[in-house]
Amino acid sequence: MTFQILSYPGRVETFRRIFGRDMPEVGFAGSVEEADPADVRYLMAWTFPDNLATRYPNLELIFSTGAGIDQITGVDIPPGAKLVRMIEEGVTTLVRDYVVMGVLGLHRDLPAFLAQQRQEVWKTRDFVWPDQRQVGILGLGELGMATVHALRPFGFNLAGWSRTQKTIEGVDCYHGADGLAAMLAKTDILVCLLPLTAETRHILNAELFAQLPKGAGLVHAGRGGHLDQDALLDSLDSGHLSGAFVDVTDPEPLPTGHRLWSHPHVVLTPHIAGHSRPESAAEATIANIRRHLAGELPKGVVDIRHGY
Amino acid sequence: MTFQILSYPGRVETFRRIFGRDMPEVGFAGSVEEADPADVRYLMAWTFPDNLATRYPNLELIFSTGAGIDQITGVDIPPGAKLVRMIEEGVTTLVRDYVVMGVLGLHRDLPAFLAQQRQEVWKTRDFVWPDQRQVGILGLGELGMATVHALRPFGFNLAGWSRTQKTIEGVDCYHGADGLAAMLAKTDILVCLLPLTAETRHILNAELFAQLPKGAGLVHAGRGGHLDQDALLDSLDSGHLSGAFVDVTDPEPLPTGHRLWSHPHVVLTPHIAGHSRPESAAEATIANIRRHLAGELPKGVVDIRHGY
Repeated sequence: MTFQILSYPGRVETFRRIFGRDMPEVGFAGSVEEADPADVRYLMAWTFPDNLATRYPNLELIFSTGAGIDQITGVDIPPGAKLVRMIEEGVTTLVRDYVVMGVLGLHRDLPAFLAQQRQEVWKTRDFVWPDQRQVGILGLGELGMATVHALRPFGFNLAGWSRTQKTIEGVDCYHGADGLAAMLAKTDILVCLLPLTAETRHILNAELFAQLPKGAGLVHAGRGGHLDQDALLDSLDSGHLSGAFVDVTDPEPLPTGHRLWSHPHVVLTPHIAGHSRPESAAEATIANIRRHLAGELPKGVVDIRHGY
Repeated sequence: MTFQILSYPGRVETFRRIFGRDMPEVGFAGSVEEADPADVRYLMAWTFPDNLATRYPNLELIFSTGAGIDQITGVDIPPGAKLVRMIEEGVTTLVRDYVVMGVLGLHRDLPAFLAQQRQEVWKTRDFVWPDQRQVGILGLGELGMATVHALRPFGFNLAGWSRTQKTIEGVDCYHGADGLAAMLAKTDILVCLLPLTAETRHILNAELFAQLPKGAGLVHAGRGGHLDQDALLDSLDSGHLSGAFVDVTDPEPLPTGHRLWSHPHVVLTPHIAGHSRPESAAEATIANIRRHLAGELPKGVVDIRHGY
């Protein structure tokens, strides 16, 4: 009974140390060479080899090192094995901090002031207070909820949208197509934290941007596939949207010369909003293996029908 | 008995409306022409005319429209009159939000990613979590405390420095010259929210920057006079400091061509961190006049000896 992780050396060694300390009864393999595939019951990686079920005939749990599993689409999950995405405090913290930075950056007009700085223009703008802004969050899972909790003390009007209806204190919750339109109409700062699925691909498109009030901004920390990049650039060019923090693109890396790099009202970061923290990820993985051994469902099991 | 405010029309009209609603027993003058100076007991402005005591012989309270009063240095305060700075929720909220934006921006390496964006470089950097960073706040008054409360949920190690020793739950509090050195030695993100006084002028200088760990950053939302701008630029050039959010300069506006405009690791904003909110400022001013009429000390009375 072996846990195998395929990742970069720093993460592998942290996992090795923490598995050795907290779960010595399970074998540990930090590379393909370290284990007989037939012994591997638990396999963690970012992407997986072809013919997974044939190569690893006894897999029970397949772990993604990341919060999303869209990169795994198409992997042949062995019958009876469960696909588990990464839910751990380290990645949640980073994404929360990135999103709050972006929300406050849009709230305090940072893209416009960065553009003024490049032109050496010293000019104030109208002041707006948090109770005069609505922040609308697409996706109310682990990351969305952590963001809600972090934004609440600032005094923004908060709204959220999810596939199924939720009830969250102090948050106007919406769901479904009608709910999306209703939330967008009042949302000044839109945050995307959705999983990428067939339903959410290109959800951030021209039609959606047109439903936001003039001057709205976007914080995009979902996946590149959510965003119609040309539609965003057009909406910024027209002045309908005022600014955007964009952490994910399609493709990644973003090719040089692409207008997202140089648009004066875009803050572009290279897919760094989230990253799982090796220590807490190892601990969360061990807790999930223990749940599985006890006959419980691991935290973060993916419902293949919905893709998350 | 008249309250006179000398400010821009929008603020004057908001004050007129709220004084008419909440304090009709006190006369209101929105310009020099609207009142006989001898009737003016309460005067609010950003800067004041010469010979204040002669022009306004019956002044009891002199209000600054701003949180700081360094722009008033040299005004002849009539004997018996009190100088009162602006403490109201609107300005506190804006400064808090600016500082948290700056702290999270430095925490998530935004200056470096902005520099990469200009060069169209897609490259991640080392990930650091909030519990691996110390945020040190210079100044623990209204603004510093609001910032402490806002930062606490993010999980940073928090430290603060003030003229007199304070005790704040969850914050390592320092004071005095020795205390400053001790705080700086462990501070990764330094925030300046000090009042500008003879003691704090150019406190952000080469010697102070040298005491910060390599890679530290600065959020400066105090006053231009706190900062030795050349020392900051030198420290950024040497790579000792990694980035800075600078909202205040000396002089203001910053002259075109100044290196602070174009330094790749400086985010420069045109003194917009704080701005009093007309509605809440009018209400806070009325509350202060009521305190004065009841024989109590208004909130924000300046101790002339310390300059704040």
